[in-house]
This record gives sequence, structure tokens and C-alpha cells, in this order.
Amino acid sequence: MGRRAQRRPVLHVEGDAVVTRQDTLAVEEPLELRVDGVALTVTMRTPGDDMDLAAGFLVAEGAVRRPSDIVTMRYCGGRDEDGLQTYNQLDLTLSVPAPTPRAFATTSACGVCGTDSVEAVRQSSPDTPSGGPVSRALLVSLPAVLQAAQADFRKTGGLHAAGLFALDGTLLCVREDVGRHNAVDKVVGWALREDRLPLSDTVLLVSGRASFELVQKAWLAGIPVLAAISAPSSLAVELAEEAGMTLVGFLRGDTMNVYCGADRLPP
Amino acid sequence: MGRRAQRRPVLHVEGDAVVTRQDTLAVEEPLELRVDGVALTVTMRTPGDDMDLAAGFLVAEGAVRRPSDIVTMRYCGGRDEDGLQTYNQLDLTLSVPAPTPRAFATTSACGVCGTDSVEAVRQSSPDTPSGGPVSRALLVSLPAVLQAAQADFRKTGGLHAAGLFALDGTLLCVREDVGRHNAVDKVVGWALREDRLPLSDTVLLVSGRASFELVQKAWLAGIPVLAAISAPSSLAVELAEEAGMTLVGFLRGDTMNVYCGADRLPP
Repeated sequence: MGRRAQRRPVLHVEGDAVVTRQDTLAVEEPLELRVDGVALTVTMRTPGDDMDLAAGFLVAEGAVRRPSDIVTMRYCGGRDEDGLQTYNQLDLTLSVPAPTPRAFATTSACGVCGTDSVEAVRQSSPDTPSGGPVSRALLVSLPAVLQAAQADFRKTGGLHAAGLFALDGTLLCVREDVGRHNAVDKVVGWALREDRLPLSDTVLLVSGRASFELVQKAWLAGIPVLAAISAPSSLAVELAEEAGMTLVGFLRGDTMNVYCGADRLPP
Repeated sequence: MGRRAQRRPVLHVEGDAVVTRQDTLAVEEPLELRVDGVALTVTMRTPGDDMDLAAGFLVAEGAVRRPSDIVTMRYCGGRDEDGLQTYNQLDLTLSVPAPTPRAFATTSACGVCGTDSVEAVRQSSPDTPSGGPVSRALLVSLPAVLQAAQADFRKTGGLHAAGLFALDGTLLCVREDVGRHNAVDKVVGWALREDRLPLSDTVLLVSGRASFELVQKAWLAGIPVLAAISAPSSLAVELAEEAGMTLVGFLRGDTMNVYCGADRLPP
């Protein structure tokens, strides 16, 4: 069970029948990232793979690109009321300039937190991700693989998943989190730490919707194909088009919608 | 259709059959909030009900409590490349101190963006929301009402909804957004503007999961009962318990799980 899921009693109501039973919850805890001694961000996340999360977050911020950009990463400081280590603070030192703590914050599930104007929404544009072709038959096979790999989701019903696949369908990495963006950060952070960036010739599959932010994160990691089980937003499609990426939505059964970059998916 | 949904051609693949057809996307655009001339936050949101969103955001920040706390709200400034009004910037003036733009940002779907330490996660605790009892029979009837009210969701498949109900089941307000937190902010902002805060004797139903942040927003608005179609996180349950709220999850068919505050739901 560990720190990713928590058991607690719950009143289960089914019509007139009421029973108290144990339920499994997805654990949500804050993680504070500190770079060179300065607090950079606090994010609510599912504990676990915290160093991947930190690394992926810094990639998405455009702050790091190579494993050597991160010199040290360790749990530090955070103690609970009883003086016990909480594992909710990570201290990092970088060999590159630390990202500037941004001036403004937001509470939305978005990728523009802290930008000081609407015009600054888009990160400095990286290269067009390279890779493909990907067969449609392969794409439709991926959701079942992701679902089979999602150990925690079936227990708690509360986690998003992101799975990174090679073009032959090999599952390279799967991560789960209460926040969909954290799941993607964890995958990208894993790739950074494995020195696999940019992630050319890969497909990223996410369990929910595709937002602007997820496209932005995939772009910055060099992922050419982003596929989502559910719908993309208008801005996600616009950004994927601008990035020269392939964006697939509603990947269910043997069906999918291809919103842009269909040239990577030959008949 | 308006600015909440966008039509665009999409390649629809169903097995070997491929057709190009029109698809409807949920629109996602950035909204910048400026208070007394200072940029406070940028959030990705579904356009529409922007003033409710701004008002609800300020309630959740603990900055405003009464309609008169907001003196003016108007679209301002934002122009696109052709010099046209984008309706993506709102200028506000308050009769109370402006919230401080916070020092740090995050990209997660969380309620602690900008807090400068993990210890500062929780907002200053407001009173325990008052209200109830609520019959279980009434609760199980609400998802169908919310779904029927969700005009946009069925077109785009990409929107979260939040619905506020009176204890007799009357639907008071429903709002949709690409971001679940925005949907709740829009409901609370509507309530502020209608001078209905605190929202004693109400039930807030959300279409997805219940996170720490949603509980926090409901608490600050004085909502005694939060119900979710999907799972809550561990921290959502802990905070709801601390707040003295009732938290219901997996509200589907005639079943539900009651995580805390079961005393408001008599047999």
C-alpha cells in the first residue's frame, strides 16, 4: 500500500443498505521544490517518483535539458508535528541557472501559472518533435497496455496515468498521480534522468483529457505523438499544430480522432 | 456555439474506416486577472462567466467576502494580433486590500499554488459550514439533474461541471469549465455576486474527483456538503473532516460513499 494509497473506513450506501467498510483512497500530499535553497513551487501530488516529478517539472519550465543539469536532489527539512521526516520537501542544486520563481500564481490545472501576461503563455518554442510513422493498429492497442499497468488506479479510482511507448508498442515508462500534469512530469523526469531526451520516436498516452499544458510538456520533452483517452481542448489542438506534433483524442476501442499531424499515421 | 465550443475538422478513424468530419472542441483560453492595475494570476479556462470566475477566485483566496468588496470588474487591455478585444483580461478594483501576488507558482491542479511553504497550505480556517440534514434519496437524484443541465459537455466531452443545489434539490447554479476548479470558482463567484455567501444549506456536486482544493474552495464558501461523481483524495477527506463538512464520493446510481460528516445524512 505504502504512501500512494490509504485505507480508511467509509459509509457505503446502496439504496437502503448502509454498511461501513474499508475504502482505498489515492493519497494527495503537497511537495515543495527548493532550488539552491529558494522555494520554487508547491504542488499537490501522489507521493512516489518525487525526483522524477521534480526533474520533469524543471524540463517543462525550460530550466534543464540534460541529466547533468541537476547536480543533487534530496529530501530535506520537512518535518511533521512530531518531528518526523515528511518526504514532502525536495532540495535541488543545479549546474544551470535556477528558474526564477514566478511572480503570480493560479489555482487552475494549467500550464501558464506565474506568467506575467497572457502573451507570455507559450514557453520559448523548442524544435519540432521528430518521429514516426506510427501504425493506427498499434495506437489502438495502447490503452489496454496502460490500463494493465495501472496498479493503483483500480484500487482508488482517483489517479491519472501517463504512459510512454516506443513506436513498436513497448511500454517504456508509466506513472500515476492525482494530478494529470504531475503524471506527465514524472514520465518526462524519468526520461531526463535516463538521459533519453528529446523523446523522439515515442508516443505519450494520457488517461484523461489533453489540455494546452500537456501538449506544452510533451513538446518540451520532444515527444512527437500525444494520445488521450478523452477530448482535447481547442488550445491543445492549436499548440500541437504549431509544434508539428500529432494529437489523437478519444482513443477507445478501435476508434480515434486525429486532430493534427495525421501524416505520422499512415493508412 | 459562441466562444465555449469550437468546430474544426478531424480525421475520425474507426477500424479501417477513415473519414474527415467536423468535431466540437471545448474552448480553452487564458484569462488574466488584474487587481488595481497589478497582474494577479493567469488561468486557463473556458470563456464565459468570467466575472463569476474572478469573483469566486477571490473568495477562494480569502480576499473578498461580500459583493461590495468588488467595486468594478471590466474587460480591458487584451488585444490580439489584429488589435481586437480578446476578452481574456479582466481588470478589477476592490474596496478591500488586494491579495498579494504570490511568490511561487505551480503547474498542478492544486490549491496551494504560490504558498511559500508546505505549512502554509491551508487557508486561514473559516467557520464550519452549516446546513442539513440532506436525504440520501435527494443526493442520488442530483447527478441526473447536473447532467441534464450540462449543455456543452455532451457536445465536446471535455468539460467539468459544478452544480449548486438547495436542500430541496433545486438547482441554484451550474457552471462548466475545462478546469474543475474554475467550474467551482464560477459557482462561488455567482453566489458572491448574488450576495448568497456563506452558502449554508446547500450541496455542491462536482462531475469528477474531489481534491484538496475543491474541499478548500467549498469550505471558504460555507458549503456544508460536497458530493463528487468520482473518488476523493486522502487529503480531501482529511480537510473535509477538519472543516466539519460532509464529503460524498462515487455518487452513482443509488450508491454513494460517505467519507465524513455522515450525521448530515440521516437514514
